[in-house]
Amino acid sequence: MQKIYIYDSTLRDGMQAEGISFSLEDKLKIVEQLDAMGVDYIEAGNPGSNPKDLDLFNVLQEKGLGHARLVAFGSTRRANIDAEGDRNLSAMLAAGTSAIAIFGKSWDFHVTQVLHTTLDENLRMIADSVAYMKQHGKEVIFDAEHFFDGYKRNPEYAMKTLEAAVNAGADSLALCDTNGGAFPMEIYDITKCVVERFNIPVGIHCHNDGGMAVANTIMGVQAGAVQVQGTLNGYGERCGNADLFPIIANLQLKMGYRCIPDEKMAELTTISRYISEIANLPPDTKAPYVGASAFTHKAGMHIDAVLKAPTSFEHIDPALIGNSRRLLMSEMSGRSTVLTRMKRFDQSLTKDSPEVQAVIDELKRLEYEGYQFEGAEASFDLLIMKQLGRYKKLFDIKDFKVIADQPWQSEDNSAVAMIKVLVDGTEEMTAAEGDGPVDALDKALRKALEVFYPQLKKMHLTDYKVRVLDSRAATAAKVRVLIESSDGQYSWSTVGVSTNIIAASWIAMIDAIEYMLLKGDDI
Amino acid sequence: MQKIYIYDSTLRDGMQAEGISFSLEDKLKIVEQLDAMGVDYIEAGNPGSNPKDLDLFNVLQEKGLGHARLVAFGSTRRANIDAEGDRNLSAMLAAGTSAIAIFGKSWDFHVTQVLHTTLDENLRMIADSVAYMKQHGKEVIFDAEHFFDGYKRNPEYAMKTLEAAVNAGADSLALCDTNGGAFPMEIYDITKCVVERFNIPVGIHCHNDGGMAVANTIMGVQAGAVQVQGTLNGYGERCGNADLFPIIANLQLKMGYRCIPDEKMAELTTISRYISEIANLPPDTKAPYVGASAFTHKAGMHIDAVLKAPTSFEHIDPALIGNSRRLLMSEMSGRSTVLTRMKRFDQSLTKDSPEVQAVIDELKRLEYEGYQFEGAEASFDLLIMKQLGRYKKLFDIKDFKVIADQPWQSEDNSAVAMIKVLVDGTEEMTAAEGDGPVDALDKALRKALEVFYPQLKKMHLTDYKVRVLDSRAATAAKVRVLIESSDGQYSWSTVGVSTNIIAASWIAMIDAIEYMLLKGDDI
Repeated sequence: MQKIYIYDSTLRDGMQAEGISFSLEDKLKIVEQLDAMGVDYIEAGNPGSNPKDLDLFNVLQEKGLGHARLVAFGSTRRANIDAEGDRNLSAMLAAGTSAIAIFGKSWDFHVTQVLHTTLDENLRMIADSVAYMKQHGKEVIFDAEHFFDGYKRNPEYAMKTLEAAVNAGADSLALCDTNGGAFPMEIYDITKCVVERFNIPVGIHCHNDGGMAVANTIMGVQAGAVQVQGTLNGYGERCGNADLFPIIANLQLKMGYRCIPDEKMAELTTISRYISEIANLPPDTKAPYVGASAFTHKAGMHIDAVLKAPTSFEHIDPALIGNSRRLLMSEMSGRSTVLTRMKRFDQSLTKDSPEVQAVIDELKRLEYEGYQFEGAEASFDLLIMKQLGRYKKLFDIKDFKVIADQPWQSEDNSAVAMIKVLVDGTEEMTAAEGDGPVDALDKALRKALEVFYPQLKKMHLTDYKVRVLDSRAATAAKVRVLIESSDGQYSWSTVGVSTNIIAASWIAMIDAIEYMLLKGDDI
Repeated sequence: MQKIYIYDSTLRDGMQAEGISFSLEDKLKIVEQLDAMGVDYIEAGNPGSNPKDLDLFNVLQEKGLGHARLVAFGSTRRANIDAEGDRNLSAMLAAGTSAIAIFGKSWDFHVTQVLHTTLDENLRMIADSVAYMKQHGKEVIFDAEHFFDGYKRNPEYAMKTLEAAVNAGADSLALCDTNGGAFPMEIYDITKCVVERFNIPVGIHCHNDGGMAVANTIMGVQAGAVQVQGTLNGYGERCGNADLFPIIANLQLKMGYRCIPDEKMAELTTISRYISEIANLPPDTKAPYVGASAFTHKAGMHIDAVLKAPTSFEHIDPALIGNSRRLLMSEMSGRSTVLTRMKRFDQSLTKDSPEVQAVIDELKRLEYEGYQFEGAEASFDLLIMKQLGRYKKLFDIKDFKVIADQPWQSEDNSAVAMIKVLVDGTEEMTAAEGDGPVDALDKALRKALEVFYPQLKKMHLTDYKVRVLDSRAATAAKVRVLIESSDGQYSWSTVGVSTNIIAASWIAMIDAIEYMLLKGDDI
C-alpha cells in the first residue's frame, strides 16, 4: 500500500477562516488530536507574521510529539537582502522545528504586481531561503504559491521557481491552488508534469473556491502527489481548504492508499466534532463521511431499502469512520420508522395500529409549528408515551415568575425565578438566581422538584442550543430550543418551540425532567 | 458556446435533506425563482409517493411557467403488472407535465436484493414504463439509479438498462451516482462510454458523499454530458446533491458553456440566500461563489495584496455572481483594514496614529470576550467613534425590569418590561408587553426614547440571531446576539455578548439605537 503523507494546516491556514480564532490552549488540544490521529506533518504557525505563534512552538518543544513532525511556515526572504538578515526566516528558525515550509511565488504576475520585484530576484529569493534552511539542517518543503494559476499563464516561469527550490536542496515541493479556482483535470495534468520532471516528493494543497478541493486533491494524488495538505473540517480562508476527513477516507477506505493507522479511521467522526467544538463552530451536518446527516435517511423508500441491505443507499459502512446510521422521525420518514421507535415500548404494535397513526398525526402537527424531533429523541419518546397511555404527570407547575434586572448591576446573577410546584397534593415554592432568565428558571425548577424526586440531583444540562426559526420577525420570531441532559451515564435531548425564548426553554426543560423520571430501564 | 441543460431537483431530491420541509407556498416561491433564473427543467415532485405533490402540479399548471419545463418524477412500474395498471405511473400522468423522469434500477444487486425481481423483468419494467409515457406524448428522461455503482460491478447489465430505455424511446439518459461515492476519473470514463454508445443526450446526477459532487458533475460534462442535475445550495439527503450554484458558475464563467442567460449570473448570490431563507436553514457562509465568506479576506498580507490586485487572491470577480468582497475586522486583519474603516471618520489618520492602536487593542479585548465584529459593522463603527471622541451619550438608562410569567397563561404577551430613561435631565418611564422578555424590552425602550427622538419611529429590527458560544455550559453559557436594524433605507448590524440573553440583546439594541442617532450622513 502506498503511503500518502498527511500535512495538516488547521493551525495556520485554518486560522484564516472567518469566525475562527484559536487560543494557545485550543491549539495545544488540536496538536494533541492531530498527533494521536497519526498525521505526518503539523504546520503550527507562521512565526514571522504572528510572533505569538512562537509561544506555541516553545510549549510544543517541551512537550514533544509522538509521530508527527512540527512545521514552521513562512515566506521566502524579502527582495534584495541576505537570507541571514531576514527576520521572517529568523523567526522560523527560532520556532525550533525539524521541518520548515517556505512559500514562494510561482505566478509571474504576483512577483511583479504584489511583491514588486523582478522575476530573477524572486528565483534568487526562493533559492537563498531554501539553501539557508538546509544549511541549518532543516527538512524543507517548498510551497509553490499560486502554482496552478502561474503554470496556466507562464508554465516556463512556474517550473523555474520549482527548479530553484529543488536545486537549492528542497526536500519536497507542494503545489498550491491558492485561489482555489482550478479544475480537476488541470490539477491532474499539471501535477503529472511536475512529478515527471522532478525526483523529489510532490505535495498538493487545494482550496475550495470552485467547490472542488477534495476532488482536486484526489486528482493530484492520482497524478503522483504523495503529500496531501489540508485542514480539519476544511477550515480556511474564503471557502476553506481541502478537508482532510473526506480526503483521508477516500484515499484509505476506497483507493488503497495508507494515510493514517487503520485503527485511527474509526475515530475520525469524533475528532471532527471535537475540533468544531474547539473552533466553536456548529459542526457541518452535511459533511461527507463525518457529518451527523452523512448516513441519515429520511425517505421511506430509502429507509426500507437500507434496512434490507445497507449498501443500497450507503457508499461505505458508517462504522468505518465512527459515524452511524440515523433514520429520521419526520413526516416523510414513513410509518416504518415511527413504528420501529414505537415498538421499543410495545412489541405488539403493527403498521396498522391506530396508535401509530395518532403519533404520525401529532408529529405532523408539531412539525408544522416548528418542532423538529430529528435531534430530540427524548421528546419524541414522550410523545409516543402519551399516545400509548404510558405517560404519567408527576408534577404540576402552579405558578412561576421570572424577574430580570438591568444586567450591569449584578453581573452574574441578574435574574431571579420563583416557582411553585405541586406533587401528590403537596406544594413546594422556591426561588433561585441565575445568569439570565433561563438559567434562573432552570435552577428554581430543579430545586423545587428535587424535594420530591432526589434522583434529579444526578441530572444536569450538558448542551443548550437556540435556533431562531424566522429571523425576519426579529425579536418576536419563533425560537426552537434544544436541550441535552445527562444523568452521568445516559444523555437525552428534548425540544421546545415558542415565540418566547423562556417558554421554548421551559417546554424543553420539562420534557427533559419528565423523561428522566419516566424513562425507567426499558428505554 | 455549447448549451448545458440545467435540471433542478430542489423540490424532489432536495426535500430529502435533514431539516428541510417545504410547504406548498414555499415550493411555489422556489419554482418562481428557478423559472426566472432560467433553468431548463424543474423536477417538482414525486406524485406517486407523495400525493400532496399533485396539489403543487395543479397550481403550477394554472399559473404556467416562462422558460422552464416542469417534470414529474417517479419509478418504473412495479414488477409483474402492466404499465396501465401501475398507480405510480398514473400519478405521474395526473401531474400533467410535458416531461417525465422515470427512475429505474441499473445495479443488478438492487434489482435482486431490494426490488426482489429478476434482471430480465427489471429491463421490461424500464422499457414498458418509458414506452407508456412516450405513448402519452411525454418527453421522457430515464434516470439510471445507481448507474456508476452498477457499472463498476456489472457493466454489461448496467448498459442493458440504458439500452432498454433508449429502445423504448427515452429522450435522454441521466446517469446517477445515487450513493455519492464515485470518483471523478470514474465518472469521466464511464460517462464517456455511455456518450459514445448512445445517440441521445446524456445527463449527470451526483451526490456529495465523497465530497466531490461538484467536481464529478464537471467531469461528467467534460466527458460529454449535456444535462446537469442538482439542487439549489446542494440540499439533499445525507451529504446533499450536487450544488447547482458552483456548477453553473464553473461551467459558464470559466469553461465557456452556456447554462442560464448571462444577465442572470449576477443574481445567483441573492437567489442562494433567498432559498436558504425559504428552507429556514442558515446560509452556508463558506459556500463556493455565493457564500458570505467566499470573497472574504482576513490575513493582513492577503488584504494588502487584494487591494493592490484583486486577482491575487480571488479566482473570479465576485460581482460576476452578485457577491462582494469583505475585509474582516479582526485581530489578524491587520492595521490596514482597521485604518481603512477608521478613515471614513477621519481622513488624516495614518497607520501610526495612536487612535488606530487603541482601536486594535479594544478589538482584541472584545474578541477575547466572545465578540465578533465580522457581521456587526455598526458596533465596530461605534467603537471607532468612542476612540475618536466622536461618540456622544444621548440617553441614560436609569432602570429596567423585565417580568416573565408562565407563558401558557397569555400566549402572545407573556412578558412585560418597565424602563426609565434620562435624556437631557428629563426622565421618561414606560412599560410594554411582548412575546418574551427580549421583545418586551425592545418595545419599552423604543417607546421611551421616541418621546425625545421621534426619528426612531422609522427604525425597526429586521433580523435577530442568537448564537450559544460555549454550549457545554448549558443555560449559563455565553450567548452572542446579532441584531440587524433598518430605517427603511439603510440597514446596520450590531452585536452583544453576555451569559444572559437579555443582557446580550440589550447591548446590541442600545448599539443599534445609538448608531441610528449618531450616524449622520457621513457614514
